[in-house]
Amino acid sequence: MKVTGQTWKFENKPVILGASSIVGPEEGEGPLAQDFDYIYDNIEINEKTWEKGERRLLEDAARTALENSGITEEQLQFYVGGDLMNQIISSSFAARKMGVPYIGVFGACSTSMESLAIASLMVDSGAAQYAMAGTASHNCTVEKQFRYPTEYGSQKPPYAQYTITGAGCSVVATQGVGPEITYATIGKVMDLGIKDPFNMGTAMAPAAVDTITAHFKDSGRSPGYYDLVVTGDLAAVGLPIAKELLQKEGVRMEETDFMDCGLMIYDRDKQKYVLSGGSGCGCSAVVTYGHILKRMRRGELKKVLVVATGALLSPLSYQQGESIPCIAHAVALEMGG
Amino acid sequence: MKVTGQTWKFENKPVILGASSIVGPEEGEGPLAQDFDYIYDNIEINEKTWEKGERRLLEDAARTALENSGITEEQLQFYVGGDLMNQIISSSFAARKMGVPYIGVFGACSTSMESLAIASLMVDSGAAQYAMAGTASHNCTVEKQFRYPTEYGSQKPPYAQYTITGAGCSVVATQGVGPEITYATIGKVMDLGIKDPFNMGTAMAPAAVDTITAHFKDSGRSPGYYDLVVTGDLAAVGLPIAKELLQKEGVRMEETDFMDCGLMIYDRDKQKYVLSGGSGCGCSAVVTYGHILKRMRRGELKKVLVVATGALLSPLSYQQGESIPCIAHAVALEMGG
Repeated sequence: MKVTGQTWKFENKPVILGASSIVGPEEGEGPLAQDFDYIYDNIEINEKTWEKGERRLLEDAARTALENSGITEEQLQFYVGGDLMNQIISSSFAARKMGVPYIGVFGACSTSMESLAIASLMVDSGAAQYAMAGTASHNCTVEKQFRYPTEYGSQKPPYAQYTITGAGCSVVATQGVGPEITYATIGKVMDLGIKDPFNMGTAMAPAAVDTITAHFKDSGRSPGYYDLVVTGDLAAVGLPIAKELLQKEGVRMEETDFMDCGLMIYDRDKQKYVLSGGSGCGCSAVVTYGHILKRMRRGELKKVLVVATGALLSPLSYQQGESIPCIAHAVALEMGG
Repeated sequence: MKVTGQTWKFENKPVILGASSIVGPEEGEGPLAQDFDYIYDNIEINEKTWEKGERRLLEDAARTALENSGITEEQLQFYVGGDLMNQIISSSFAARKMGVPYIGVFGACSTSMESLAIASLMVDSGAAQYAMAGTASHNCTVEKQFRYPTEYGSQKPPYAQYTITGAGCSVVATQGVGPEITYATIGKVMDLGIKDPFNMGTAMAPAAVDTITAHFKDSGRSPGYYDLVVTGDLAAVGLPIAKELLQKEGVRMEETDFMDCGLMIYDRDKQKYVLSGGSGCGCSAVVTYGHILKRMRRGELKKVLVVATGALLSPLSYQQGESIPCIAHAVALEMGG
């Protein structure tokens, strides 16, 4: 383990032994459908409340990640997880079911890579042989908590994003077959004064830019090193802003594929209701643990930097006139020699 | 770094270089008043909203911890923190002000030791030379969010606890003068079916017992090794239950002083409004970082195990009929040779 600036280098190269992605029906209609482990055909996720549905997604994802890793419940030592619900109840209830030592984290939609970075730190340092990272979101739990209950049918501006329904988990291990986790860059809180809670992409873009810039500076790498750099969920409004800001910083993102999980998960031409694209804790989790890892295992991608972005507001902080603090955490995944 | 069961042994012995405790007026009337760095004389903490007050406590505590450690803002590499507010806004706003890479965590009132365990893992493994752990709570923000606004004057049962107003931070470093952090035991979620959100002590006692039992099993130590074992905030109802359960488990707690931060912070005879005692993220933080560390530095205590307990419910999970999942994380502090 070595730290430079805000970046950890995992010298013992922990691997993602297995991962999982479980989604709802709308994500199952998107272009990545074939990469998910399971697609529920109902937005209720076979449960009586949205919140119980979100929890079920995460519990399913945890179980599936263990199966896909070929390890038992008893072998798993720690679970690192969080979600968007107040007091991260989905994660805590999932941890109750799993019965393993639990570290609850919160980074809004950056939780996917925050939890993966901590699980990797644990495995790299010898604090665990097997640690799970996981997160989930549900469109209706988030609408109800942060905006209005879905049943109200409230209208949104076209730059708003659509919280995805899905959960993703990964099992990080000291050794085994799978992508190596080589670096993690822990983000700083960035806040450029955006106060419109629908305009998440704009609010989060500077955080993504700050973390990407720090990652290249700290690691000594350049964008061309990666086959793909993918942000969490900046979507159609935020990604162009991030591109422009990175150009001003002199970071040559044109050397690599630069994409966004919120743009990849839906077909915005057909699924018009997603507006500017996907968001939510589950977004970068299911795109990374479903789509990207499968492409890496097939040999289509060798080196990927996932930069999950999060907007750290609460309805109350917004109502009290606060702007939206944002953060982004990056993790580098590489197929070994 | 070595892991046994759910316990980390920090072989490089990170130290608490400095710490801080900032409290409100009610904590300033309690028996530990002389141990706190600063006592606000108004529950508003000189701010216009309770939430801004809570944030200010944490920002004050972060600044004071740096001063007490003798390091600069530039030297601090990471901040690990969380609180009880939805989306842990107090911590995220404090992180915005500090401008350092930030790991948001949530463990309800166990956040004090969860954040200290992670900061210690970072320093022990070489992921940081200096990392801060911190948390805060405010009586009125918590009453408003979890129960009713304080102005309603709603009555509570005598077994209810009183959320403390205060913030505590610590700076963990690779070397320097201060108590060494030797072990951390990460808790599992325990839930024995308690559904009354006022009855936190009863709900949390089994989690404390599980973590204490695991700590002694994993570390090979016995209670008599410590001068003091202190739980987070079980208060007058929960501590006797924990004692009884530990006796049944055959853990000889009579070999050590066994206390509770929620009982230590107030004078329950004079401060009748605190009912069965203190609670809240700030409770174990200010008692540990204020009172206990000062006793250690004065040589009155050499070996202390702090077991912070947390109730991971949300108002919504309670309203949906869920029982209260609880957790406890333990950290061992020892004055070096």
